[in-house]
Amino acid sequence: MLNVAVLGGSGYAGSELLRILLSHPHVKVTAVTSERSAGSSVSGTFLHFRNTALRFEPLDLNTLVKKADLYFLCLPHRTSQETVAFLHNAGKKVIDLSADYRLRSAATYRRWYNTPHLFRSLLKKAVYGLPEIYRDRIRNASIVANPGCYPVSAILALAPVIGKDFADTDSVIIDSKSGASGAGRSPVQPLMFCEVNESVRAYAVTTHRHTPEIEQELSLVSGKKVKIIFTPHLIPVNRGILSTVYLRLRGKTTLPAVQKLYRDFYSGEPFVRILGNGVYPSTNAVRGGNFCDISVFLDRRGRERSLIIVSAIDNLLKGAAGSAVQNMNIMSGFDETAGLLSPPPCP
Amino acid sequence: MLNVAVLGGSGYAGSELLRILLSHPHVKVTAVTSERSAGSSVSGTFLHFRNTALRFEPLDLNTLVKKADLYFLCLPHRTSQETVAFLHNAGKKVIDLSADYRLRSAATYRRWYNTPHLFRSLLKKAVYGLPEIYRDRIRNASIVANPGCYPVSAILALAPVIGKDFADTDSVIIDSKSGASGAGRSPVQPLMFCEVNESVRAYAVTTHRHTPEIEQELSLVSGKKVKIIFTPHLIPVNRGILSTVYLRLRGKTTLPAVQKLYRDFYSGEPFVRILGNGVYPSTNAVRGGNFCDISVFLDRRGRERSLIIVSAIDNLLKGAAGSAVQNMNIMSGFDETAGLLSPPPCP
Amino acid sequence: MLNVAVLGGSGYAGSELLRILLSHPHVKVTAVTSERSAGSSVSGTFLHFRNTALRFEPLDLNTLVKKADLYFLCLPHRTSQETVAFLHNAGKKVIDLSADYRLRSAATYRRWYNTPHLFRSLLKKAVYGLPEIYRDRIRNASIVANPGCYPVSAILALAPVIGKDFADTDSVIIDSKSGASGAGRSPVQPLMFCEVNESVRAYAVTTHRHTPEIEQELSLVSGKKVKIIFTPHLIPVNRGILSTVYLRLRGKTTLPAVQKLYRDFYSGEPFVRILGNGVYPSTNAVRGGNFCDISVFLDRRGRERSLIIVSAIDNLLKGAAGSAVQNMNIMSGFDETAGLLSPPPCP
Amino acid sequence: MLNVAVLGGSGYAGSELLRILLSHPHVKVTAVTSERSAGSSVSGTFLHFRNTALRFEPLDLNTLVKKADLYFLCLPHRTSQETVAFLHNAGKKVIDLSADYRLRSAATYRRWYNTPHLFRSLLKKAVYGLPEIYRDRIRNASIVANPGCYPVSAILALAPVIGKDFADTDSVIIDSKSGASGAGRSPVQPLMFCEVNESVRAYAVTTHRHTPEIEQELSLVSGKKVKIIFTPHLIPVNRGILSTVYLRLRGKTTLPAVQKLYRDFYSGEPFVRILGNGVYPSTNAVRGGNFCDISVFLDRRGRERSLIIVSAIDNLLKGAAGSAVQNMNIMSGFDETAGLLSPPPCP
Repeated sequence: MLNVAVLGGSGYAGSELLRILLSHPHVKVTAVTSERSAGSSVSGTFLHFRNTALRFEPLDLNTLVKKADLYFLCLPHRTSQETVAFLHNAGKKVIDLSADYRLRSAATYRRWYNTPHLFRSLLKKAVYGLPEIYRDRIRNASIVANPGCYPVSAILALAPVIGKDFADTDSVIIDSKSGASGAGRSPVQPLMFCEVNESVRAYAVTTHRHTPEIEQELSLVSGKKVKIIFTPHLIPVNRGILSTVYLRLRGKTTLPAVQKLYRDFYSGEPFVRILGNGVYPSTNAVRGGNFCDISVFLDRRGRERSLIIVSAIDNLLKGAAGSAVQNMNIMSGFDETAGLLSPPPCP
Repeated sequence: MLNVAVLGGSGYAGSELLRILLSHPHVKVTAVTSERSAGSSVSGTFLHFRNTALRFEPLDLNTLVKKADLYFLCLPHRTSQETVAFLHNAGKKVIDLSADYRLRSAATYRRWYNTPHLFRSLLKKAVYGLPEIYRDRIRNASIVANPGCYPVSAILALAPVIGKDFADTDSVIIDSKSGASGAGRSPVQPLMFCEVNESVRAYAVTTHRHTPEIEQELSLVSGKKVKIIFTPHLIPVNRGILSTVYLRLRGKTTLPAVQKLYRDFYSGEPFVRILGNGVYPSTNAVRGGNFCDISVFLDRRGRERSLIIVSAIDNLLKGAAGSAVQNMNIMSGFDETAGLLSPPPCP
Repeated sequence: MLNVAVLGGSGYAGSELLRILLSHPHVKVTAVTSERSAGSSVSGTFLHFRNTALRFEPLDLNTLVKKADLYFLCLPHRTSQETVAFLHNAGKKVIDLSADYRLRSAATYRRWYNTPHLFRSLLKKAVYGLPEIYRDRIRNASIVANPGCYPVSAILALAPVIGKDFADTDSVIIDSKSGASGAGRSPVQPLMFCEVNESVRAYAVTTHRHTPEIEQELSLVSGKKVKIIFTPHLIPVNRGILSTVYLRLRGKTTLPAVQKLYRDFYSGEPFVRILGNGVYPSTNAVRGGNFCDISVFLDRRGRERSLIIVSAIDNLLKGAAGSAVQNMNIMSGFDETAGLLSPPPCP
Repeated sequence: MLNVAVLGGSGYAGSELLRILLSHPHVKVTAVTSERSAGSSVSGTFLHFRNTALRFEPLDLNTLVKKADLYFLCLPHRTSQETVAFLHNAGKKVIDLSADYRLRSAATYRRWYNTPHLFRSLLKKAVYGLPEIYRDRIRNASIVANPGCYPVSAILALAPVIGKDFADTDSVIIDSKSGASGAGRSPVQPLMFCEVNESVRAYAVTTHRHTPEIEQELSLVSGKKVKIIFTPHLIPVNRGILSTVYLRLRGKTTLPAVQKLYRDFYSGEPFVRILGNGVYPSTNAVRGGNFCDISVFLDRRGRERSLIIVSAIDNLLKGAAGSAVQNMNIMSGFDETAGLLSPPPCP
């Protein structure tokens, strides 16, 4: 059994991590921290948890460092920088769910997050935790930067085609619709029930921090400089991201040829499914699971042609906690799907 | 491995049954039927299913009877009567999720369901499938009448106290709030999204068919003739029943004494939890799981005193498919919680 | 034109008041206050407002007292006490939407609100603002205590029968289901979208502050000491209260006779509708309007018989802002329905 | 008073039309038809209606033609063709909410609607009912083809810039999110509450029938052949369309310059509002009203630059019934805003 700790366990991603880890066949959760809930029992804070005696403790790294072999960090960005460094220096493996080690360039990080990166050598060691792209490097990583929720949905939608000659990488459009849990659990007025319910709105148009992360990874995958327009929207569901991606074509191709690229690219992947002709991904079908559903469409009505790719994930699972456990499984030599296959309730 | 079949597998309860059974450690699903989806694959009909090659087949009993040892019936009432009889006569175990074998009295059945009961001797053999009350009899049952969703929430809320001297059994009030999945998957105008969303309403006031079922069981538990007023309400959630129960007191008691009755009654029960003082059950905490949360309150403001008991279940799980699997586990000598403990996603 | 001011206009009730008043044929809104939004324009804070140049100003009574003839107060309880007194002493009419002047007894107020009442002589002058009961007194009132949202739904449901000989007034049960706007606009964790959505829960069982208000008014209407059990529930809708009321009968009566009592009692009332046999009130049908829909049912299954009365209102309108405007219309000699009849959008 | 009739009044658009017309200062509703509800009272079918004695009658044109001067048609496409012709030939004015008279080209109509157009001369007479573009022609029209809901949101978002030199009209992308009322009131399984709730999905990708309508109008406005990619999505709200539009720029411009184009274009328009910098349209702010909110953003991150335009409307009002009444007002010489300005409830 691997001893693991969850730092920052009282948010939505943290509680989903706990949920999976507590029934994982190969791990033991030895500590979970929360500043706001320190001292409280986990099952008293999250009433859907039962049969666990875990209590939240404060974030005291000198104590925590003795308790586990692998650490999941659900801490605010910037706080994560130092915590990752501390644990890494103590020889521990770390999966960081914050944005702190996702961007390869410290300058880009500084520009988008308004704070310098103080651990550039560690940044070089960190591996971007998207198994469908980096499985081999994750296997030997000591620091995994778990991807952002929107980037997972966007990168998986584009990875099979973005590097192809027919793909115009100059202004890929990613229009994403996300549930409210993506915004976290801290009470703010715009996320109150009556403000979100019965409404839809765009936010952070042209300025969302996941933009450089998506561009970085698509550029690495394609070997070309990819520029995106990314527009996130808030819709009244608890969970789920549906991304509708528009990719202009420079050359000719056919829908069957493109579908084959997708099937080949994700062949053998346990968590990605390419849907058949005319079947639409919905967040309903992925809610509560670690899966990503993708459909591809070809628009041939204009002089230009475009691919329209629709992907669906659960933002808290494939977009956060599920990916993190998948990464842990890979890093630890477990079956990659361990703890992640119980089919979710629906509807 | 036990071979099981699900007859009527394309509704919400049926699909939840399939979901649990497909990952159950001790069973193999050998057949699933659906008239409307016959010929279709299960994973094509329910996109949240993956990794199953199962296909829906038509309800042909002569074929089906060779395929399994235990049958779950999610068929319309009246159709279930004969199907249970056929399978029972062939020596099979049956768990019937319809109402056909729940009422002990054929006359009561006829009055509430407007159709005669044609298998009265079988009615005598059937065991009401609420493990917290009938565990021992379920163990040896060949026909289990799986309880209705509202009755589960109401009976569990009242069982520890309804037989006590202090309980006034003459007009227990049960005010229940249910999600829309309880009404099934067939398209009707009042269950369209825009009709249910942003609204709440009562329905079937004084006439709901679960009334005699609740009265029968509370009378059996208490040894007294119990009369209830049962008012169901439809609220805009997919799943969950919250029942608020009002029980007048004839004699004196205290809240701690009553709470002890509940804790003792459900001591050792794997799926019932009595919440502490001032903690409120919510369907959020039971959604996706086989659990029932209960809180008890004492009102001492009037000349009369009353208990207010609040219970929460997931109508598709503890109120249908989860109970059914729990019953199968008991009937088959499996661990009673097998397949039922994976913690549900929340929120 | 009557000059009116809204003190505390940036909450949900306040914004609904503004909405009605800004298109009311006989009034002019001359001031609106908000501590948190002082200085902002109303249409910038509430984007559904257009065509108004109003700006929120701070609560400076010496300035405000010169601006209007009638004041609507949507202030926190306790703050309202003094503000009502100040404006009353300046000769102004006041409609107070807080709880401060609703309870006749200062001792009861102190017990439930944990603060003394410092203006007992004014308390005597205040009229409880439920037109269906107190229309004549409201006409000449200078201080109107606008009723709480739950009390409106409960009192209107019971007023026609609570004083009758057949009514058992000793433990009336009121089980209410409310949308989230009733809890206000301040950000707190339990009212975040993901906490409310897809869930239902009871709260404040036996302790809700609307309990003494309902008991006071039902006692006054009936001439008997009425004791209630009141259980509020939070459901995932923006607006609406559905109250299901259980009233035991001491004597015999019939459903047609009871329905006639309701029709007679509310004969000529512009905002109360008694639905026909088997028609169920829903919050859908009253959302966005100042109406109350009521249905009555008779349960004759137990030895005892009970009435089940279901009422539906919009908590922000008939339960707050709509009632307040109705009271203003009465106090000012306007048509009682002025500004209140535009039919609401549905669904 | 103008006598008007609503043919097809028992759907969502029809009931919203009735709602507005019944409180409109200058019209009298003399007939309303419904095949499914013929014989029923309007207020019994739609419980949110009060104070109307109207009853649904069957669609008998010989009777109906005597009853009104102007007819609103909410009939299925194809049925509308003949009904429009019949009423037009009888000298009546018609506002057709179906798609039958929206497309200028009978061939295009036939290709997208799989049925021939039998009244080509009338097609030439029909005016597309978007007042912001065609106000003068609507004034004298006898047949108005009321626009589709998605087209209203898309055309208003693009009209001020689509004809400019800097606009690349070759593959405009329109990503729209719509509430469920847009799909109508007939019960079908994919629109059941549990299927829509807590989910989001795309549908009709590259094949939605509003595509040629949007292209036709944008081409007419711009004088260029405009090609769009239009992707509709279903989100779990009753009402509202949010369209996020991506327009590539061929030449240079600035955000302030573009914003000025929008403000100038819609200067004096009573129902279109251009929001300030960084303010996001939400369906919350337009729900229940006849308004369209628009914000414009400029993305300058890629080599190419793009405008991102976000528009919000209520699909049943500005997207259907509200526009229809606005058109009637124009055709009849009434104040264009008559009946349309009562501010909507929010939230």
